[in-house]
Amino acid sequence: MAKNRSRLSIIPLGGVGEIGKNMTLYWYGNDMIIVDAGLKFPDEDMLGIDIVIPDITFLVENRDKIRGIFLTHGHEDHIGGLPYVLREINVPVYSTRLTLGLVEHKLREHGLNDSAKLIAIDGNSNIQIGDFTISAFYVNHSIPDTVGFAIETPEGVVIHTGDFKFDQTPVDGRQADVHKLAAWGAKGVLALVGDSTNAERPGYTPSELSVGAKIDEIIAQAPGRVIMSTFASNIHRLQLMIRAAEKYGRRVAVVGRSMVNNIQTSLQLGYLEAMPETLIDADDVNKLDPSKLVILSTGSQGEPMSALTRMARAAHRKIEIVPGDTVVLASSPIPGNEKYVARTIDQLFRAGANVIYRGVHASGHGSQEELKWMLQLVRPKYFLPVHGEFRMQRTHADLAIQLGVDPDHIFITELGDVVEFEDGRARLGGKVPAGTVMIDGLGVGDVGNIVLRDRKLLSQDGILVVVVTLSKATGHILSGPDIISRGFVYVRESEALLDEANKLVETTLAKLVSDNVSEWSSLKTAVRDTLGRYLFEQTRRRPMILPIIMEA
Amino acid sequence: MAKNRSRLSIIPLGGVGEIGKNMTLYWYGNDMIIVDAGLKFPDEDMLGIDIVIPDITFLVENRDKIRGIFLTHGHEDHIGGLPYVLREINVPVYSTRLTLGLVEHKLREHGLNDSAKLIAIDGNSNIQIGDFTISAFYVNHSIPDTVGFAIETPEGVVIHTGDFKFDQTPVDGRQADVHKLAAWGAKGVLALVGDSTNAERPGYTPSELSVGAKIDEIIAQAPGRVIMSTFASNIHRLQLMIRAAEKYGRRVAVVGRSMVNNIQTSLQLGYLEAMPETLIDADDVNKLDPSKLVILSTGSQGEPMSALTRMARAAHRKIEIVPGDTVVLASSPIPGNEKYVARTIDQLFRAGANVIYRGVHASGHGSQEELKWMLQLVRPKYFLPVHGEFRMQRTHADLAIQLGVDPDHIFITELGDVVEFEDGRARLGGKVPAGTVMIDGLGVGDVGNIVLRDRKLLSQDGILVVVVTLSKATGHILSGPDIISRGFVYVRESEALLDEANKLVETTLAKLVSDNVSEWSSLKTAVRDTLGRYLFEQTRRRPMILPIIMEA
Repeated sequence: MAKNRSRLSIIPLGGVGEIGKNMTLYWYGNDMIIVDAGLKFPDEDMLGIDIVIPDITFLVENRDKIRGIFLTHGHEDHIGGLPYVLREINVPVYSTRLTLGLVEHKLREHGLNDSAKLIAIDGNSNIQIGDFTISAFYVNHSIPDTVGFAIETPEGVVIHTGDFKFDQTPVDGRQADVHKLAAWGAKGVLALVGDSTNAERPGYTPSELSVGAKIDEIIAQAPGRVIMSTFASNIHRLQLMIRAAEKYGRRVAVVGRSMVNNIQTSLQLGYLEAMPETLIDADDVNKLDPSKLVILSTGSQGEPMSALTRMARAAHRKIEIVPGDTVVLASSPIPGNEKYVARTIDQLFRAGANVIYRGVHASGHGSQEELKWMLQLVRPKYFLPVHGEFRMQRTHADLAIQLGVDPDHIFITELGDVVEFEDGRARLGGKVPAGTVMIDGLGVGDVGNIVLRDRKLLSQDGILVVVVTLSKATGHILSGPDIISRGFVYVRESEALLDEANKLVETTLAKLVSDNVSEWSSLKTAVRDTLGRYLFEQTRRRPMILPIIMEA
Repeated sequence: MAKNRSRLSIIPLGGVGEIGKNMTLYWYGNDMIIVDAGLKFPDEDMLGIDIVIPDITFLVENRDKIRGIFLTHGHEDHIGGLPYVLREINVPVYSTRLTLGLVEHKLREHGLNDSAKLIAIDGNSNIQIGDFTISAFYVNHSIPDTVGFAIETPEGVVIHTGDFKFDQTPVDGRQADVHKLAAWGAKGVLALVGDSTNAERPGYTPSELSVGAKIDEIIAQAPGRVIMSTFASNIHRLQLMIRAAEKYGRRVAVVGRSMVNNIQTSLQLGYLEAMPETLIDADDVNKLDPSKLVILSTGSQGEPMSALTRMARAAHRKIEIVPGDTVVLASSPIPGNEKYVARTIDQLFRAGANVIYRGVHASGHGSQEELKWMLQLVRPKYFLPVHGEFRMQRTHADLAIQLGVDPDHIFITELGDVVEFEDGRARLGGKVPAGTVMIDGLGVGDVGNIVLRDRKLLSQDGILVVVVTLSKATGHILSGPDIISRGFVYVRESEALLDEANKLVETTLAKLVSDNVSEWSSLKTAVRDTLGRYLFEQTRRRPMILPIIMEA
């Protein structure tokens, strides 16, 4: 894999067979560029893990070839892994202004803002790197300033869509660059690397405009305060909320750290507009007539520490939910968050609010008809469905086949697959190291399967530590056994069980000693086995058992 | 609460503010009857817990008054808690034949089948108990032989719907007893206690007939084997699958313990029909032409140990997924199971199957229009929306208000609320002990908040056990400190960190000893605090720290 002369390789390092941590490597000759560097949130079996990023072993091995990182937009699943990549490979980062604004904020938190080289591009930029020419094109998505990339190579042009939808009536008035896409399609496109997130959804994704109408209606009719939550990065939707508030003479307060940050950045960079008097300090919300107020809040996913969730459980410092409040969850639950969202809604209802939690959302990803439009405009020779779990990639592939793409020209890739293009033909060319790196606190990759297995065991039935001191001289028990339990049973309720367990350890050890067994490993194994069997019989549980044998 | 003369009390002990563990107590004078005794599955924060049942403290306190348990149908959320109740209070259990067939099986597993008194009823039964007359009426649901109860009392009649939908074209031809409901409505109903599960869903729930048409179409068109999974208790749907298989000359094999059991019970009791040659042994599936075979399987919820999930990950003893297989998930994911279901679908696709996972399902619960029909037919004076989380109860209440029920006559109850009816008037009359009992293995209620908190901590960052032996004479360290870690870091990767931690504990103890501090509690607190702070600084993690100080 060391050489790659006159051959284009496309290597997904994240975002295939999964939702999240998007990252794709393009390699021609002696040059590599990376598109996106995302994170994803841990699966439910990754106990204690904070976030997950792509394994970048292959990038580190090839750091001398990497020329730049191109970001499609400012969502965490596209930029959240960037600090970890830049720490290993400091190359220029290219993206649109808003995306770089959000990136800067993130790099500052990681102490990397001084060393990073951020280069702003727009829909007219053409960046020349080695044999690559990279030009951005605008698409619609649930955050402004989202682009895809046309990557020209000696083998032909590759269209990398990034996350996209086609919104004919976007909030910022900037439609996707369909004419550019059509022009490339007319000239001939080697390959399309396309977002599969909504490939299972028939029809079209509604315009954000439809959400605006709903927001307007809610604010127009609300008798008191309106508390609206959505994704902190959905600047378009926040713009709609601010517009509607202004229309009905309401002031706007913003709560929740990430939303405050994003709104500040967007206002500064001109991606969000508000009249000078509209935005007020969150400390002043209780001074205003409730019917003159809209509160924008984080927490639309029921995140336990978010502003809305704290309000819902009456634990917010500044805002208390009262009857007469209208609370809007302008979002739909991300898979896995359903229960948290439901809990928040219930708590808000109990507190007396009128809760509107359906119908105030439109996805940022194109549905089947829009995916067909993209395929139709671009007319690619080869097709790589990415950004999706396997069934989404598979369904996206089926759409492409319906539109006439040769099934043999479609690559449903896994992480690290190398798709090679040479002399106009593509083939699957092996694999590079790729996968998942778990981040727990400050630790990057220091939690592996053994640690996770132990956490799983500990979480199910807890742990018993058995401490005993044996005489160096005779081998007999000098003190103990003492059993300390955590997460197993409530000790006061189970004294008899633990007393029995104690006696059992004692007789087990006594018997071994009288049989002249003295290797600690044998003693420990005996304690673990005997006690484990006894406890399973009595409780049908299997706590972790940690025998500690001392000598004195 | 000891006396209840000439007053009717309705007390929800489960199934309000939650989905699952349904249980309602009816009390008049000296007599109590219980409707349903369900379980629910643990929330995601109840680590290691197997199932959850209602707190029955109040029933145990009043065991001399309890005359019987009436079961509406055989689903776990209505019968799963029964063994735990019968162990404390052995009273007669009344239900339809199929429900009792499933109950018998369950009681056998708990060794209670000899002591239990099961009494079969049907849609014509009237059971007289004290001042109660209880008559069952048929409703439609996703398991046959489902009934609701009309409970006549001196205060008036209460209609307890249980889970229901109105299916005009049910698989077994038995429609809900709408004429009985209408007749009660005409005479006057004191209160309706109604299922709120689908209260958020507009329109009508489709008939099971529509699922049958889809199943027929899939089997007619499938080129090879068809593997169909659904809830093991959905006998109607299994009947549709068997019918379609027979129509197209296919044999049927059944895999998955619960489905095998349910199908046997249903065949024996006459709730399921199959031609004598249709059902074959699962051992024979590989002897048949794939196009002549349908396999019915558990696992439609992606349960990790179920038959379908094992097939999907190529770990099933008898059946391997091969290209050409058609796999049908005739279900929709229960909230919380979405990720498991998605994983199973992806694995099946990867194995080459054609997977059909949408559109082969109809809910067993009535949607808003059916809930309105029930309210309309029954015309209750009072209304208790039950079987649902708060927002579903709230939405169901709003439907009732739309239909003219007086808002002051609606009780959105919480667990243990007592709704009292006296002289034709109802009021909220206090609370009885009620709540949640967690079952972990054989332990009923022996896991409480402290144990769960420890499991949570252990699951996040693991545990460090610090062992040190001090001299009885001098207080100085004789051996150790030794640090044993489980679930914290992968030791081989973090030797330096643990070495440092070791030294820190040593110097901390040495300093205390030289300061003449010798109480073990002070020494332990110092170790826990110092080490905890150090590890948090270094790793941003907070493992549980268990100092063990010995003397010799």
